[in-house]
Amino acid sequence: MHNWLLPEYIEDLLPPVAWRLEYLRLSTLNLFRTHGYQLVTPPMLEYLESLLTGTGSDLDTRTFKLVDQLSGRMMGLRADITPQVARIDAHLLNHQGVTRLCYAGVVVHTLPEGMNRSRELLQVGAELYGHSSYEADVEIQRLMLEALTLAGVGDLYLDIGHVGVFSGLMAYGHVPAEKETALFQALQAKDTPAIRDLTHGMDEATRAAFIALPTLYGGLEVLDEAFRILPSSLEITQALEQLRAIANELKGSARITIDLAELRGYHYHSGVVFSAYAGSHTSVLAQGGRYDEVGKSFGRARPATGFSLDLREIATQFWRAPGTKGILAPYLKNARLAEKIQQLRSSGEIVVVELPGHEADRSELNCDRILLDNKGEWEVVPLAK
Amino acid sequence: MHNWLLPEYIEDLLPPVAWRLEYLRLSTLNLFRTHGYQLVTPPMLEYLESLLTGTGSDLDTRTFKLVDQLSGRMMGLRADITPQVARIDAHLLNHQGVTRLCYAGVVVHTLPEGMNRSRELLQVGAELYGHSSYEADVEIQRLMLEALTLAGVGDLYLDIGHVGVFSGLMAYGHVPAEKETALFQALQAKDTPAIRDLTHGMDEATRAAFIALPTLYGGLEVLDEAFRILPSSLEITQALEQLRAIANELKGSARITIDLAELRGYHYHSGVVFSAYAGSHTSVLAQGGRYDEVGKSFGRARPATGFSLDLREIATQFWRAPGTKGILAPYLKNARLAEKIQQLRSSGEIVVVELPGHEADRSELNCDRILLDNKGEWEVVPLAK
Repeated sequence: MHNWLLPEYIEDLLPPVAWRLEYLRLSTLNLFRTHGYQLVTPPMLEYLESLLTGTGSDLDTRTFKLVDQLSGRMMGLRADITPQVARIDAHLLNHQGVTRLCYAGVVVHTLPEGMNRSRELLQVGAELYGHSSYEADVEIQRLMLEALTLAGVGDLYLDIGHVGVFSGLMAYGHVPAEKETALFQALQAKDTPAIRDLTHGMDEATRAAFIALPTLYGGLEVLDEAFRILPSSLEITQALEQLRAIANELKGSARITIDLAELRGYHYHSGVVFSAYAGSHTSVLAQGGRYDEVGKSFGRARPATGFSLDLREIATQFWRAPGTKGILAPYLKNARLAEKIQQLRSSGEIVVVELPGHEADRSELNCDRILLDNKGEWEVVPLAK
Repeated sequence: MHNWLLPEYIEDLLPPVAWRLEYLRLSTLNLFRTHGYQLVTPPMLEYLESLLTGTGSDLDTRTFKLVDQLSGRMMGLRADITPQVARIDAHLLNHQGVTRLCYAGVVVHTLPEGMNRSRELLQVGAELYGHSSYEADVEIQRLMLEALTLAGVGDLYLDIGHVGVFSGLMAYGHVPAEKETALFQALQAKDTPAIRDLTHGMDEATRAAFIALPTLYGGLEVLDEAFRILPSSLEITQALEQLRAIANELKGSARITIDLAELRGYHYHSGVVFSAYAGSHTSVLAQGGRYDEVGKSFGRARPATGFSLDLREIATQFWRAPGTKGILAPYLKNARLAEKIQQLRSSGEIVVVELPGHEADRSELNCDRILLDNKGEWEVVPLAK
């Protein structure tokens, strides 16, 4: 085995893409900043309990475990930043009112989430705490769409669902809890025969509703149909009304699909859930939802909604522009030359000094111009091929 | 144990410092970019052999180990990015001429390096490959000083040594290899009685030189003294000449101390070594040196010099400026208001929308101005306390 080989689904980022990602990172955080989101930077490692409280078993299997030599306790290499930010909101900041936080950092997964995914992600996201109504969800989804647009992702689709539809149906039909997982999986797979089997013996309205859920997918008209088909319990009606309010506000910003069988993150989400896609790209680019219970395990449940995206995936998949070329400068002790180089660099130009004895290597320096002395004035001229 | 407690020497970064660090990160990389250094982003995890080849046992004990579920092999959570960048230069880029690379990323240590240090660092650095002469060392040290200045660190001191002085003396005196470690440790500790013991029985010139090394510390005049006191073997003379050339070029940029007993990184460095300090701050802020052998284990030894620094330490220790306050905007559907908010955010201002029902929480939103409607024109006015 050669020692320059990397583990599977682990990659280096090389010059043009690496820079693009750095630049995107700050631009995205700056977008959040100008919307009033304050940046927090939680650590790469924490005690396992803190990283995994209230998050479900998925995250547990995705998290690398390490022993802390100082305490002898188990730590995790974070696989998700969201619970860390909830910890900061609940415990460190302890604000009473609306709190807007954002973050950017590396997360690592034990196994890749898909064939073309890396085990190392640059997770970037924003969270809004302390506001329980739909306006907060709209703000978060709008910010997510703006972040994707800023990253050069066009042709945006937004998929919106609400876990209250499913949990409302479970409650309305008095469905026993042991059926939840099977029903949940059948709905996720849009497996109608399985749903028919599982709902056998339920009352007519509940059964019809479960069977209809996978078909309640499409434009805003789906909501009208849902109001007609689904039982009108308080939880279900509120969920549909929230979806309608959100979709109405966002319909100018992206093509919206309502998907009432969408239950991603059902175990920790508590309201609206959403995912963003782009035209021909098949995988989810950004996702989020409401998870009002997330702070509970840190001693302080309060309303929360947020989203996250993998900027590394976006920088890699949507990268187009070539790297900018530089200007070569001779190695000379000359005050005017030094001043000219300084000035060019301050204006953002790349100036590469040609070190003595290496004038033959020019082709690898990625320069297309050179500084030449024209009667005491240093001028930038095209570099002859 | 509360689940919001963090492990020792592991911290969250909260709003003003977190943003400062993010901003510094991009500014520093941009400085490197405008000097022709291309950004590479190696992964957080690699096979242990790749991370530890040719680096010495220090790094081994500082590196967290993990099992790769896909290959069953041992991986390390990186504790240093330098060997990763050497791997990229040696194997992936494979340029023939001078190659300038830079990087920024989180590294994690099993144990802190000192009482006030974190186990999580943001390591930022630059490496110059393929140039063996002192001009490359000068370029690297100058860039390091510029990076520190950019980060707001003033009153800079530069400590320069050369491992060729020690290895030249070992060769000149035919000192047996088994004495190397003990002599090395005695010199690092500037423990003159121990040096006297260890050099007992050596020839007079070698012994006198070893005993003198800890006193060869101070301004540039130390070099004159060294030329006089130390044996004039080729290796020693070349080392002193390189130091003189470098110190002469850099004396305008920082206060320079020559330290001929400085052997930090002796086991992997091969020439000049240097450290930067600031006025009253006691710990090293940035350090580096020449390590021409670093690429060897990846199949390609070539000249290399570089430096790195912990930007997290710098952002935390040298942070002064307060965070900028924002502008409150009412929650209203109004096209002119939306346009005004967009325009303020584009200009870099923070605009926070006040979500319905939370107008009483203003004090936590960190705003000092508000948008008010003045006969159809939206104006920014100071927020009454």
